[in-house]
Amino acid sequence: MSMIGVLGGMGPAATLDFLDKLVKLTPASRDQEHLPFIVANLPHTHDRSSAILGVGRDPLPQLLAGIALLNQIAVQVIVIPCNSSHHWFDEMSRLSRAPLLHIAKTCLDAIPVSSETRVAVFATRGALMSGFYQRELVAHGLGFIPPDFEHTQPQVDLCIREVKAGHLEAAGQFMTQACRLATQQGANTLIMGCTELPLASRYADTSGLVLIDSSLELARASVTFALERGWNRPGWDY
Amino acid sequence: MSMIGVLGGMGPAATLDFLDKLVKLTPASRDQEHLPFIVANLPHTHDRSSAILGVGRDPLPQLLAGIALLNQIAVQVIVIPCNSSHHWFDEMSRLSRAPLLHIAKTCLDAIPVSSETRVAVFATRGALMSGFYQRELVAHGLGFIPPDFEHTQPQVDLCIREVKAGHLEAAGQFMTQACRLATQQGANTLIMGCTELPLASRYADTSGLVLIDSSLELARASVTFALERGWNRPGWDY
Repeated sequence: MSMIGVLGGMGPAATLDFLDKLVKLTPASRDQEHLPFIVANLPHTHDRSSAILGVGRDPLPQLLAGIALLNQIAVQVIVIPCNSSHHWFDEMSRLSRAPLLHIAKTCLDAIPVSSETRVAVFATRGALMSGFYQRELVAHGLGFIPPDFEHTQPQVDLCIREVKAGHLEAAGQFMTQACRLATQQGANTLIMGCTELPLASRYADTSGLVLIDSSLELARASVTFALERGWNRPGWDY
Repeated sequence: MSMIGVLGGMGPAATLDFLDKLVKLTPASRDQEHLPFIVANLPHTHDRSSAILGVGRDPLPQLLAGIALLNQIAVQVIVIPCNSSHHWFDEMSRLSRAPLLHIAKTCLDAIPVSSETRVAVFATRGALMSGFYQRELVAHGLGFIPPDFEHTQPQVDLCIREVKAGHLEAAGQFMTQACRLATQQGANTLIMGCTELPLASRYADTSGLVLIDSSLELARASVTFALERGWNRPGWDY
């Protein structure tokens, strides 16, 4: 049985938003045309951003336990709808039989190369300090504005926190503030590099910015990977 | 590690609606206060209703494979957000180390006992022929109108099919027709005994009916089971 493995729960609402995209992106008119997947929703995983910043417990043993669990039930690919946890992407990949798709690489594939592009990345402080988005942007030759930890980041932090607490409208207001600052600094493209942010963006004014949704791009890559291998074929048995 | 096991994918949209309810019913302001769960989304499972009616392949081996998979990773309770599959509840329970919660029993717990109550059950033809809802209603001493296979059921069938195809507004129109017939026949309470129906009800006129949502009641029972055992405790490790 070929299945997509999803290491989730970081946080749970963002995981469900990702799964909703994955299901909606799958061309299907009845159950049997959909894709099989296993979700390990493990919300107790220690805060990824704090750990990267050196002020929290290390989540790597928990991330590896989740990867081991998904491998134990023989998933054929693993995706993680949490950007910050990609700080440990190499460690997780090394100990996984199933290949992992990298969320930042799926986002970069969605940005048309242009000398006009000026990308802002909204993410946790940890993910920005880790630097994997900036490295991908450099590799793709795309212009970007550096993280603004003084003014923009506090708004992004509050936005993420409110989504995790289930307050989407409040989250949207903080996102509006952050977007305003990013456009003032010259950004015309925004990578929502934290899977909580797409939930807030529905309640935010993001005008002037082309939005790149890391959750949507990871879902798209997951569906493409599975469809190319025929995992949606009706009559496929287990 | 204590986790809820969810045998899902029947269908995928209904499973996500169930998970959304489960997450929203959990009192949490940050990731680490949420409940851990594993979802086996196995949409290729043969159609349950057709099999009960004797016109489709037997899904029991697939259901048991899903139950075995969830037991393999040591979930502590299993819930199945698909009513029709409860036709095989005893067979699944017998081969599961983890206890299973019965979706119909969670619904019946939500209906106040009253001599005025007249319950209609909307479900697949298979689930109605299986009769587990009718047996629970009798056991609870609740009045109910018998299934109307001639007029109401064709509307319910179309409603479920449209939800599975992702057409919620069309599904809502069929549900409105079915509700009108049920109230004409004297129903004042409606058990949405198929997890696709709550998705359609948002687009339907259900006036005159107290709605009992099998997906919501199963989610409520799952959260209660887990919270009573402290599975949401921050600092709980794995």
